[in-house]
Amino acid sequence: MVNYIGDTDIFRIVDNLGVGVFMEQLAAVIESDYRQWSEFEKSARLASHSPLGVIELMPTSNGRFYSFKYVNGHPKNTAAGLLTVTAFGVLADVVTGYPLLLSELTVTTAMRTAATSALAARWMARPAARSMALIGNGAQSEFQAIAFARLLGIEELRLYDVDTWASAKLLANLQAHPDTADLRIVLAADTASAVRGADIVTTVTADKRRATILSPEMIEPGMHLNAVG
Amino acid sequence: MVNYIGDTDIFRIVDNLGVGVFMEQLAAVIESDYRQWSEFEKSARLASHSPLGVIELMPTSNGRFYSFKYVNGHPKNTAAGLLTVTAFGVLADVVTGYPLLLSELTVTTAMRTAATSALAARWMARPAARSMALIGNGAQSEFQAIAFARLLGIEELRLYDVDTWASAKLLANLQAHPDTADLRIVLAADTASAVRGADIVTTVTADKRRATILSPEMIEPGMHLNAVG
Repeated sequence: MVNYIGDTDIFRIVDNLGVGVFMEQLAAVIESDYRQWSEFEKSARLASHSPLGVIELMPTSNGRFYSFKYVNGHPKNTAAGLLTVTAFGVLADVVTGYPLLLSELTVTTAMRTAATSALAARWMARPAARSMALIGNGAQSEFQAIAFARLLGIEELRLYDVDTWASAKLLANLQAHPDTADLRIVLAADTASAVRGADIVTTVTADKRRATILSPEMIEPGMHLNAVG
Repeated sequence: MVNYIGDTDIFRIVDNLGVGVFMEQLAAVIESDYRQWSEFEKSARLASHSPLGVIELMPTSNGRFYSFKYVNGHPKNTAAGLLTVTAFGVLADVVTGYPLLLSELTVTTAMRTAATSALAARWMARPAARSMALIGNGAQSEFQAIAFARLLGIEELRLYDVDTWASAKLLANLQAHPDTADLRIVLAADTASAVRGADIVTTVTADKRRATILSPEMIEPGMHLNAVG
């Protein structure tokens, strides 16, 4: 009997805790896993590339449990109303090789990405960091904003996206969310003005054609770069 | 919506067709896939070894569909009443990266292994091959016997296992099965007498401590070796 966690289960857990608290707990687990880094079996992700995207398998084991994640990345999916990234994973027992748990991981992956970003910034950004530029305003950017508000105490956000509708939608979502309702949020006219004077710069894009977002003259001393994509 | 094929679905399909017919159709699909070998993306299986076994991921793609299989190999499982090998797999759409199908593959893997063995023998064994030694008489050996009876016209089997109970159980199962009820079946006293004069020698073992089964003096000219394990 393999247990199953579907997206409705994930949404229920997140709704009960709140996204901010969920990501705080997630960051604590991730930090604890990093402290046991040497105990994990590590291997390069196994990627299958196609003209439209990539599908990857990411296995690991700590000698007691084995797990892998399946995750795709297809930037053009959004045009068809589909998600850029979806994921699921399996947890298995190393002693018997039997699967124990199959879990939907799309939302979990989105929150893990944001929690890891905030965790890294907590160790690497200047402690007084309070402003963040957020370049690329799709689905992941909302999780990034919540994670940085909640885990780092970011007070000011500057949003920029080539698609102004994406920025407007993100703004509305953040104003309605308890963890980010109090943020000062600025819609910037371009990347350079969003980045200027920011303590942290977060890039969250998946489009390979526009892969260059920051140019050297935008980078200021002490700025923390959180290049998610 | 990801479709799911569970073990009850597999058993229903196999029961409707019969194991022999199922493996014949499976062999035809495998042969057709080998003819398109150059169109598949190939990579080494990603294996995670532990003292008790191995868990492997086996991905491939033909540019339209992506798939992977999860399969474990834990020889000591049988002592606890568990299977040595279990498997499941996912089929995904390369264009969107979305999973399409999740399928239980434990029984499918067992039948695929036997169908591939018989297919290889059809190309490589002498056309007049009618007798087969079957060394190692666990669950897989029954599928091997059915596949070779059905796809190759094997008429005589010589069974040997260090566990005589396994051989007796296999004999009873084969005598009760329509595809193998007419075979001449001999219980051999040891590997050497099972192998002597056989046209085909099939080894089906998973125990790494007893990995050496055949020694050079047992091998005769023209003998086809089907070393499954």
